[in-house]
Amino acid sequence: MRTLKLTLAYDGTDYAGWQVQRGSKPTIQGTLQQALRRILKEPVRVVGSGRTDAGVHARGQVAHIRTRSRIPCDALRRALNSRLPPDTAVLKVQEAPAGFHARFSAKRKRYHYHLFIGDVVLPFHRRYVHHVRAPLNLALMRREARVLQGRHDVSAFQRSGRPVRDARRTIYAARVLRKQDWVTIEIEASGFLYAMMRRIVGTLIDIGRGYRPPGTMQRLLKSRNLREAGPTAPPHALFLVRVVY
Amino acid sequence: MRTLKLTLAYDGTDYAGWQVQRGSKPTIQGTLQQALRRILKEPVRVVGSGRTDAGVHARGQVAHIRTRSRIPCDALRRALNSRLPPDTAVLKVQEAPAGFHARFSAKRKRYHYHLFIGDVVLPFHRRYVHHVRAPLNLALMRREARVLQGRHDVSAFQRSGRPVRDARRTIYAARVLRKQDWVTIEIEASGFLYAMMRRIVGTLIDIGRGYRPPGTMQRLLKSRNLREAGPTAPPHALFLVRVVY
Repeated sequence: MRTLKLTLAYDGTDYAGWQVQRGSKPTIQGTLQQALRRILKEPVRVVGSGRTDAGVHARGQVAHIRTRSRIPCDALRRALNSRLPPDTAVLKVQEAPAGFHARFSAKRKRYHYHLFIGDVVLPFHRRYVHHVRAPLNLALMRREARVLQGRHDVSAFQRSGRPVRDARRTIYAARVLRKQDWVTIEIEASGFLYAMMRRIVGTLIDIGRGYRPPGTMQRLLKSRNLREAGPTAPPHALFLVRVVY
Repeated sequence: MRTLKLTLAYDGTDYAGWQVQRGSKPTIQGTLQQALRRILKEPVRVVGSGRTDAGVHARGQVAHIRTRSRIPCDALRRALNSRLPPDTAVLKVQEAPAGFHARFSAKRKRYHYHLFIGDVVLPFHRRYVHHVRAPLNLALMRREARVLQGRHDVSAFQRSGRPVRDARRTIYAARVLRKQDWVTIEIEASGFLYAMMRRIVGTLIDIGRGYRPPGTMQRLLKSRNLREAGPTAPPHALFLVRVVY
């Protein structure tokens, strides 16, 4: 039995997210499993590093499969890319040690959220960026983001209805980067709760607009109250960029 | 009566091209005219610098309108952008002299055609790039492109069924630029015949693949025979970048 590590990119626009579920829209996991079954002629379960929500994109999602097939990695990559729809691509297929598990072996994940603060979003970027028209205080956003770095209970950024038992996570980096009219919010953490990245982004935007005062992040981390954080930013500007093992 | 110059960007994917025509798909010109009529409360004719074919994009198309409205340029731009579908954007609205004509006053146009020569096209770029899997001899493509520079009868790059009376055009620049796995074919000319840019690109790709020998461009310019040029490259990787007045 071989364990293969797959590195994936996808445009989440037309998917109901990563995980297989009932419903009319396809999922990334389901689409991959179908393609793999056809190629490998055996049932295959694709295990991702974690779920991405409906509409969220990835350029470095990682998944693993276990297979009896002897197909070379590169041949499998090519076969998958010719069979998958053009909004999903396999960037790499690599042999992994038998114990490798895309979810449990993951050490860190990095997400990017793209804001556009200029006048007009070019039509070619419209699917991948959140247009924020109000002026943003980026210096304040940067300072508030920095407060998130470290090990914390991040319950405040959960979404109601889906509490987890242990909400402690280590945030290795929380940056606000600007390049002309593009602002990227980058967060790298040991793990993310459901919708956590988008609630952090929504809170940072509120702070940048002046709707919430300096000190907001510190207060939220202390309160652990999921009713106090900002709104959930829309999914279409969010990218899972990298999973570190 | 004011003359206004509009600078436009659009994603041509879902349009039947620039020009109003009967059919089920909308056109850029028609979409703009509708939005302008609603805002200005008068019938408006939008005159473009030229047509772009179905599926072709623009980041610097120029058009003009004549109007009795006194709406300030910036207010018109904002009103248009809030009314237009997200695949069409107005980048600038400027006052123009009464004699300005988007088509007749245009001196040069620049088009870019994007090739991707790597293994896997990222899903986010799939709508805007032509994936060429065979290895390309870029040095030869560059030399052959350079032959196009100057004033020539470009009949060989017409598409059958649409001959023009005078096919002489000045090609100011014909370049093949590479950045990692991206190759951009840039052509700037006094004017373009129908599908001319895409036939030049199709011919250059044939040359780069070794399907046609060095000297092909020189031979085509001399022959003026539209049956000898290469295939018409697909529209989705073509951008009208700039119109010079």
